[in-house]
Amino acid sequence: MKVNKKALERLFHYRNILYRLQEDGVTRIYSDTLAEELHTTASQVRKDFSLFHIKGNKKAGYHIPDLLDRLEEIFDSGAAQKVIIMGMGRIGSALAQYRWSSNQNLVVVAGFDIDPAKQQRTGFPVYDPQELSRFVSQNSIELGILAVPERVAQAAYDALAKAGIRGVLNFAPVILTERPGCVVTSYCVESELSSLIYIVNKEKKEL
Amino acid sequence: MKVNKKALERLFHYRNILYRLQEDGVTRIYSDTLAEELHTTASQVRKDFSLFHIKGNKKAGYHIPDLLDRLEEIFDSGAAQKVIIMGMGRIGSALAQYRWSSNQNLVVVAGFDIDPAKQQRTGFPVYDPQELSRFVSQNSIELGILAVPERVAQAAYDALAKAGIRGVLNFAPVILTERPGCVVTSYCVESELSSLIYIVNKEKKEL
Repeated sequence: MKVNKKALERLFHYRNILYRLQEDGVTRIYSDTLAEELHTTASQVRKDFSLFHIKGNKKAGYHIPDLLDRLEEIFDSGAAQKVIIMGMGRIGSALAQYRWSSNQNLVVVAGFDIDPAKQQRTGFPVYDPQELSRFVSQNSIELGILAVPERVAQAAYDALAKAGIRGVLNFAPVILTERPGCVVTSYCVESELSSLIYIVNKEKKEL
Repeated sequence: MKVNKKALERLFHYRNILYRLQEDGVTRIYSDTLAEELHTTASQVRKDFSLFHIKGNKKAGYHIPDLLDRLEEIFDSGAAQKVIIMGMGRIGSALAQYRWSSNQNLVVVAGFDIDPAKQQRTGFPVYDPQELSRFVSQNSIELGILAVPERVAQAAYDALAKAGIRGVLNFAPVILTERPGCVVTSYCVESELSSLIYIVNKEKKEL
């Protein structure tokens, strides 16, 4: 399955902009206005929309409520999306307390950590990873965030996949072997900073 | 300037794997061995390397110390890379304490926050943003991490660019207007989770 991740990312940001415009009482928008807000081109906007079968009207533009309905459908944001976090160190804890944008419908419901000192039932609940499978099936959780140290990342991901998690956002600086039925996308701060160093140096040489 | 970011990301991970192999006493490696470690193909490895003018030897493979020298050059990791963090909320604080891999040579040297309660000079120093320009020029800082709330993200990025920062990693869920001379790459947890939801749902439908 091929997914255009860049287009999906833009779609997500179109959605945020459209919510803001709707709050301001705007009901219709042209692709060039939307493009301007996102520092892209009108043809890019139309291409992104057509990729997800969204049609506009040349003269009248897009009808914002219809557009938002379709975008909600794409991101399945009708119901709250429950997320768990594996690894309640600094990154995990920060994400557990992350204030999601109001239109997000994402709820981090629990954390898991092998450290008994981090386990607690009051406030934000943190459980022993041994309770993972039971918790995931009882609460129909599909999404997990992986924020454990590098050396245990694969084992922790395997446990999430085995427990029935369908999608994982991985923050450990390691390439995981993906299991069938459990998609993983990784973000590595170190790798991103290193790439940034390369780009900055390249730009300096080109000056 | 066009940079193949996916190739750069793989290069970063090749580098980590090569360090590990070197520690184990390995001095030569073939593209297929490296490919296996990274769950990719040998032709992808060779393509990535040739993109950055790295040549191998069909019979003898790549010489690991030479390969690492070239990778260090690409990521400019001979000297320590100093990084500052703008916004010392939960995400900023977590990143300030992030334990980088030993081969990274990345050092987070200071944080900046408008909240006087967060400013401190002992332990990890956090300064008033008014001191940003002075600090950046005195310490020759080129990299910044942006971890401020959405509504002040553009202003904070503008301040970083004005202070002389050349590359910014942005965690605010907003598309920034880029200033000349200051590259920005953004990561949005919300957008990534939303994309993951789309991918998971699409896979379920395809089953």
